[in-house]
Amino acid sequence: MQHIESRKNPIVQMARSLHRRKGRVETGLHLAEGEKLLGEAAASGLTIETLFVVEGYGGALPAANHAYTVTRSVLEAISTTVMPHGVCGMVETPRITDVPEHFSPGMLVALNRLQDPGNLGTIVRTADAMGAQGIILGEGCVDPFSPKSLRAAMGSTYHVPLYAGDLKAALQRLQDDGVCCICGHLQGKEGLPYFTDRCVIVIGNEGNGVDEDIAALCARVRLPMYGRTESLNASMAAGILMYEAAKWMREHNL
Amino acid sequence: MQHIESRKNPIVQMARSLHRRKGRVETGLHLAEGEKLLGEAAASGLTIETLFVVEGYGGALPAANHAYTVTRSVLEAISTTVMPHGVCGMVETPRITDVPEHFSPGMLVALNRLQDPGNLGTIVRTADAMGAQGIILGEGCVDPFSPKSLRAAMGSTYHVPLYAGDLKAALQRLQDDGVCCICGHLQGKEGLPYFTDRCVIVIGNEGNGVDEDIAALCARVRLPMYGRTESLNASMAAGILMYEAAKWMREHNL
Repeated sequence: MQHIESRKNPIVQMARSLHRRKGRVETGLHLAEGEKLLGEAAASGLTIETLFVVEGYGGALPAANHAYTVTRSVLEAISTTVMPHGVCGMVETPRITDVPEHFSPGMLVALNRLQDPGNLGTIVRTADAMGAQGIILGEGCVDPFSPKSLRAAMGSTYHVPLYAGDLKAALQRLQDDGVCCICGHLQGKEGLPYFTDRCVIVIGNEGNGVDEDIAALCARVRLPMYGRTESLNASMAAGILMYEAAKWMREHNL
Repeated sequence: MQHIESRKNPIVQMARSLHRRKGRVETGLHLAEGEKLLGEAAASGLTIETLFVVEGYGGALPAANHAYTVTRSVLEAISTTVMPHGVCGMVETPRITDVPEHFSPGMLVALNRLQDPGNLGTIVRTADAMGAQGIILGEGCVDPFSPKSLRAAMGSTYHVPLYAGDLKAALQRLQDDGVCCICGHLQGKEGLPYFTDRCVIVIGNEGNGVDEDIAALCARVRLPMYGRTESLNASMAAGILMYEAAKWMREHNL
């Protein structure tokens, strides 16, 4: 393996450019940090373009088109964590497809201008655990392939189908197709929604909630809360609604 | 108001020392960033020792023992966010009391070596929303008054009673007092626990789960999951268990 000692090496600069969305869009690559994420990326069939391995690293390495050993200082420059894993890599970003015309029975999640990368990653991880069919990213959502989102999703970004597109149009099509649209809303009806065998759970922006024209297409529900701070973090609200939907699906043998 | 222009001003250095636990312990102060957190701190009766207000700030200011206007550069040095609010302050840290001998009916949360400040903050916020009686911080938990924890808790750190102490001894006493101890555990019985009118939900470390000697005192439950990634983020697992406990309490008119 070739060895890189300088933070100014162009390939190191390229890896660092993936910290920002612009760099990821321009290259079609993202940064996967640590053995677990790289392993999940490889297992999902994505090409690992370039691996950076710290000197003396003893862990397993996935196949990659290029691989370099690097000094600890170079690894720290590439990584986005204070205590970097010993390996990271530039990985092909899968194409996020348009929202399909039709979905099989099950649960979908749709995100309306979700802004926090950690929340997005947590929603992706929870959607995976709850068996969601996929996640629709509406306009203005944060990038699921940002380092923070990837870290919070713990590999689920590579499992859960991701779709992107015009959220209003997508929800209208889903509704026409018989899918029940449910949104978490602080002014909604308290209690649980009436779930059906095909439903989409819509989660809004952390500060402003669900856009009015999106909420108008949905049954608005407000989770029962009991304390003084009557609002939940967006990913927590999403997680509890997904958990309830998954429970309903299981009780109805879906 | 006196004006501070230098990041090297000793009072600025003191405020910056509150980014780290050592500084918070030595001074008995923590850093509250933004109008909302400062307002909640003041409303809960805590003394605001020193306010730092950016030049030209137009928002409301709580009462404080000392107040300074600062340049944007000084504010950025004090703040822990990239886009700082226009005001922050050094606030008296409330004493975290020992675990009481007896609790009234309701739900408690106990944390066993929880390490992530964001998770702790999210748990505090959700505990508040779900009407929990309090949170017991076992040994080795992250500090609830770190800037990240405070931010994720959105002010609930000032509402929810916080206790600290020997977790094993506390759970043993609670059990002797008739409180039902429940822990989230990946090797637990799948499904929901049998809730009672007094229960404590125990959440373990992000990587290693609940310590064996702590789990031995609890009913171990594993939330039903359906997908490929069969594990939830610690705060998500805590949130869903608190939500279910709160639902049970409400159904039983507690």
